[in-house]
Amino acid sequence: MKVSIIGATGYAGAELLRILYSHPEVEVVHITSESHTGEVISSLYPHLRGRCGMVLESMEDMERIGRDSDFVFIALPHGHAMRVGKALEKLPTRIIDLGADYRFDDTAVYETWYHVEHTHPDASRVYGLAELYRDKIRGAKIIGNAGCFTTASILALAPLAKERLINENTILVDAKSGVSGAGRSPKQSNHFPELYDSFTAYGVATHRHTPEIEQALMELSGEKTIINFTPHLVPMSRGILATCYASLKPGVTPEQVDEAFQRLYGDEFFIRLLGRGGYPATKAVRGSNLCDIGWHIDERTGRVIVLSAIDNLVKGAAGQAVQNFNIACGFDEKTGLDVIPMYP
Amino acid sequence: MKVSIIGATGYAGAELLRILYSHPEVEVVHITSESHTGEVISSLYPHLRGRCGMVLESMEDMERIGRDSDFVFIALPHGHAMRVGKALEKLPTRIIDLGADYRFDDTAVYETWYHVEHTHPDASRVYGLAELYRDKIRGAKIIGNAGCFTTASILALAPLAKERLINENTILVDAKSGVSGAGRSPKQSNHFPELYDSFTAYGVATHRHTPEIEQALMELSGEKTIINFTPHLVPMSRGILATCYASLKPGVTPEQVDEAFQRLYGDEFFIRLLGRGGYPATKAVRGSNLCDIGWHIDERTGRVIVLSAIDNLVKGAAGQAVQNFNIACGFDEKTGLDVIPMYP
Amino acid sequence: MKVSIIGATGYAGAELLRILYSHPEVEVVHITSESHTGEVISSLYPHLRGRCGMVLESMEDMERIGRDSDFVFIALPHGHAMRVGKALEKLPTRIIDLGADYRFDDTAVYETWYHVEHTHPDASRVYGLAELYRDKIRGAKIIGNAGCFTTASILALAPLAKERLINENTILVDAKSGVSGAGRSPKQSNHFPELYDSFTAYGVATHRHTPEIEQALMELSGEKTIINFTPHLVPMSRGILATCYASLKPGVTPEQVDEAFQRLYGDEFFIRLLGRGGYPATKAVRGSNLCDIGWHIDERTGRVIVLSAIDNLVKGAAGQAVQNFNIACGFDEKTGLDVIPMYP
Amino acid sequence: MKVSIIGATGYAGAELLRILYSHPEVEVVHITSESHTGEVISSLYPHLRGRCGMVLESMEDMERIGRDSDFVFIALPHGHAMRVGKALEKLPTRIIDLGADYRFDDTAVYETWYHVEHTHPDASRVYGLAELYRDKIRGAKIIGNAGCFTTASILALAPLAKERLINENTILVDAKSGVSGAGRSPKQSNHFPELYDSFTAYGVATHRHTPEIEQALMELSGEKTIINFTPHLVPMSRGILATCYASLKPGVTPEQVDEAFQRLYGDEFFIRLLGRGGYPATKAVRGSNLCDIGWHIDERTGRVIVLSAIDNLVKGAAGQAVQNFNIACGFDEKTGLDVIPMYP
Repeated sequence: MKVSIIGATGYAGAELLRILYSHPEVEVVHITSESHTGEVISSLYPHLRGRCGMVLESMEDMERIGRDSDFVFIALPHGHAMRVGKALEKLPTRIIDLGADYRFDDTAVYETWYHVEHTHPDASRVYGLAELYRDKIRGAKIIGNAGCFTTASILALAPLAKERLINENTILVDAKSGVSGAGRSPKQSNHFPELYDSFTAYGVATHRHTPEIEQALMELSGEKTIINFTPHLVPMSRGILATCYASLKPGVTPEQVDEAFQRLYGDEFFIRLLGRGGYPATKAVRGSNLCDIGWHIDERTGRVIVLSAIDNLVKGAAGQAVQNFNIACGFDEKTGLDVIPMYP
Repeated sequence: MKVSIIGATGYAGAELLRILYSHPEVEVVHITSESHTGEVISSLYPHLRGRCGMVLESMEDMERIGRDSDFVFIALPHGHAMRVGKALEKLPTRIIDLGADYRFDDTAVYETWYHVEHTHPDASRVYGLAELYRDKIRGAKIIGNAGCFTTASILALAPLAKERLINENTILVDAKSGVSGAGRSPKQSNHFPELYDSFTAYGVATHRHTPEIEQALMELSGEKTIINFTPHLVPMSRGILATCYASLKPGVTPEQVDEAFQRLYGDEFFIRLLGRGGYPATKAVRGSNLCDIGWHIDERTGRVIVLSAIDNLVKGAAGQAVQNFNIACGFDEKTGLDVIPMYP
Repeated sequence: MKVSIIGATGYAGAELLRILYSHPEVEVVHITSESHTGEVISSLYPHLRGRCGMVLESMEDMERIGRDSDFVFIALPHGHAMRVGKALEKLPTRIIDLGADYRFDDTAVYETWYHVEHTHPDASRVYGLAELYRDKIRGAKIIGNAGCFTTASILALAPLAKERLINENTILVDAKSGVSGAGRSPKQSNHFPELYDSFTAYGVATHRHTPEIEQALMELSGEKTIINFTPHLVPMSRGILATCYASLKPGVTPEQVDEAFQRLYGDEFFIRLLGRGGYPATKAVRGSNLCDIGWHIDERTGRVIVLSAIDNLVKGAAGQAVQNFNIACGFDEKTGLDVIPMYP
Repeated sequence: MKVSIIGATGYAGAELLRILYSHPEVEVVHITSESHTGEVISSLYPHLRGRCGMVLESMEDMERIGRDSDFVFIALPHGHAMRVGKALEKLPTRIIDLGADYRFDDTAVYETWYHVEHTHPDASRVYGLAELYRDKIRGAKIIGNAGCFTTASILALAPLAKERLINENTILVDAKSGVSGAGRSPKQSNHFPELYDSFTAYGVATHRHTPEIEQALMELSGEKTIINFTPHLVPMSRGILATCYASLKPGVTPEQVDEAFQRLYGDEFFIRLLGRGGYPATKAVRGSNLCDIGWHIDERTGRVIVLSAIDNLVKGAAGQAVQNFNIACGFDEKTGLDVIPMYP
């Protein structure tokens, strides 16, 4: 398949290149960057030296890129993918957007949280969280790839929401991410000495991944769900750990919780169930498309605590995009993604 | 004042030495270690070279040590301080225990969580969290210095508990600590390559700081309180960030929350209120006895989220012990502790 | 090919498993550990969960393991591989030893630096640095895989030694390694809080990789070579940067230096020449079998400074072993190793 | 003494504030910043919150600031201090410049390496490395505070240069620094994910600290000295380790080397001699004005290897400035600097 990457110079775009390099069914035909048009991507990313000699193009002539491509991966800041989607509307090219533009069923929710007008509300799109929406992804024109925090959070809570084992209004997600999640542009707040040997929260009660998690949980449980989501910054490059809390409904047994996880994920290649009492660690999934999940039940408080770990740039971005791509193409879902995490 | 440190070779003991070195009213007369008896402390801790030439003694002849000391600081694993306390019962020596043995009013709670018999249940003791128990600390024979996670958690929630602004059964503390909190003994799990570039939780629903937080909150609010407490390990050496959640009681306004913090902490030297919307970071308090606190109100969910940051070895251990010591001696509370954090 | 790993629970052994997992021509038939016999390897290494269910065996019945295997990889501390080599002497099984036992032509040098008697001095062996000894590796019975520091150092200096552009008695290697190089056994010195946010040297003038570098340089230049080698510990998990210094012989031009590198490495897949003025970084090669090399000429002092970066566990251990294995089997040298480094 | 800080918003300026806060003889009267004029310094530096409420002023009216101050500390990029020096020429105000403008006896050397014209070549100035130039510092009008790498390097080599034990043309300094040395301005190269878990060199053969080291060594030995200096970036915030190499002159014994260090530094409060075989670590000096030094003799190569560790922001910048200030004022040299390093 011929694919292009729109916005290839961010961390997610570069990670796409890394993964697609090992994908036997893919040829990358265009990569774009507006600020680095004409440069060789490996002059910006030293790990690509001698491996990827592609030149960054402008996305100005989007139609040409679209005509050359079976699939277009978009790794742009939110608000920009809609224009690409519009431009490719009449072409057979399919789209996988790693940003937020095509993640919401209800574009009003998007507009409220992202403070931009949605200019492509009637787009035919599906939410790209492979384990939950595989069937819809298969034939989709546009796939709105799930976000990083949201992937970790939704995968952790989906079995409980789906089987209605938890009180929807008691859900809390306390999430921790490596710094690559904040992108590659240098900022005072992400300057090395400022973050090293420090830990802090950000975006309390306002982070845009909140409504995305709520949307998925509501769809699964059929119940109105408002959650607290709190992101934190860990002084490391990659990885997300989500610590998810909810009160169990009266009478729910530990075994029911165990079975819910087994039922939904027992056959999933990329989800490793560490079981009740398990402790996922970001290092154990780094560099891979895996999501490790463990859960705990606190009988004193009646709460279930679910822990999930992913690599934010792989299962939380580029890897998931390729997984969705594999599904959409009818390839084996593991193609190009069947690697063991790097340890230590 | 003449003071001794029982168990001087752990991180808390060494930090006590560092702080007491700058304390104008203190002479350290004995330091002990059973596994390093006879060695110079600076042969174990390179930062002390040329600054502290004291030789480690055995604590066997505890009475002699007690007679030589106005105060004895104990930095031993739980279960051992009780024996010291007993041995010094009849001496005028006063005790500050950095461990858990003297933290609980109800020794049954201690026995349940720590799985050891309490052999000194009738000890005259106070809980050593200076900002909340200053008056009792003043004349105490034994001070059970507050734990690291508990200090961060209780200070974050105390104003809300005291003014009964939150529903006690909705409290959740999601806490993150640097690795020095796990002590100085090498273990597979704390081996550098295992933890570096990784993030994980531990002790979910079972961590021993849980009942300590509950005890303090119950005393403040007068209401039965059962909480969830979840510790995590951050790949850094020092620092704790506690993210505390609770549902506000109906009708409580943001201003009431603000005022509760101002009222309790407005005059505290070691507590810096970052206000509503504030984001404490562990780096901003590192090496100091400070506790930075910020809070957020999520109107969608009706929850208040309080963030607090401390240095686990200072305000969470040795610094707090010296603060308690200053109070107990009638010194200015800041003596030896009035330093600016190290940044970056 | 059927292969076994003797000593699979160290970092190099585990990295071998990770790499061999993606190798299309390999079936791993036995993995051994004396201290964890009977355990599943993934219970010791969380990244292997769900991917490698092999059970660790004892190496006691080495002959049986040998008969089952076309190749045996040994990842044991020095001194132990010799016994394996002896035990397999009469079998057709070929051996790749990741330790030092088979690296030296002159076993007296080994005995001087490693303080053990060499009990297999007549073994038919070759030094396993693929780029320099490819021809000999092809048919070797025993391959003494090059060490981590030595690989980085020799590859950096080989073009200059081979073309006799430098004064052999002026060579200095100042090397820096991530902590995984020190193995997986927890030690006080490698306890997380001791190393984090710290930098130090070790083994000055005594490190055992010194004579290994000297041996290779002497072979290349034909001149007696005594060097200084100084290792340092970087607070990170993986990666080696070697900074190599030497005085250029009178009249040697910068262009001659450039050409020496081009001539020796111009066609090497795993060596990326960053050219004169280039700065390799460990992150740019992490997780891969690459060696990045850049060089600088200081006209004021007449010295050439060569910088080289590798991943100590891949090109410095397991990856190089697989590269040697590919050569020995007649496979494409890249098989199972053609991955892009993980970034960031 | 009334002091002002010109350029208070960089890391060195902020560190000066931290140290001066504990200095009993100092009142800070002005702090300046051109880009943050009018802002409270603690709004830029969270560790200063509640401790330093000073407002940043412009340095435009330098004369007024000078008249108000007994001492002016300058922490500006090179090229700017000369103008301050000129402006204060006729006032009694004394100057301690943390930059390079006043470090060189021969301004031509400065102009060659820094590529700016020196506009104050006739300034009465001394080089501010306290241990070596104490007498001159005492009465100096302008003190050109030694640089960070240079302090570590010169202190390591001074005893050997002074006693002429080494061949001057064989000196190599391979130095490693934490990232705070590169300043507080965010740049792509210092963006957290780019540096974390990576190690690299920079400025090979061109770093501006080279001639500063040469100047000091030449003054000590009386011999023309050209060295190699290679800086590296360690993924941590603070600390420098310098690994210094030189060939011993024929016949020099290890004891002579030991005695040279003892003779020069035996009574120095801020220099801790770890002796022959000693290994300094940056963590052991972090947050303090200490310089730890150990040395090794390699009999095979005839070289001496000296290792020295400092905190680049303290002994390498702000701490040394305060030490120079204490000397210049006739205070005890330790005033405000007698703290134990923070560990771990």
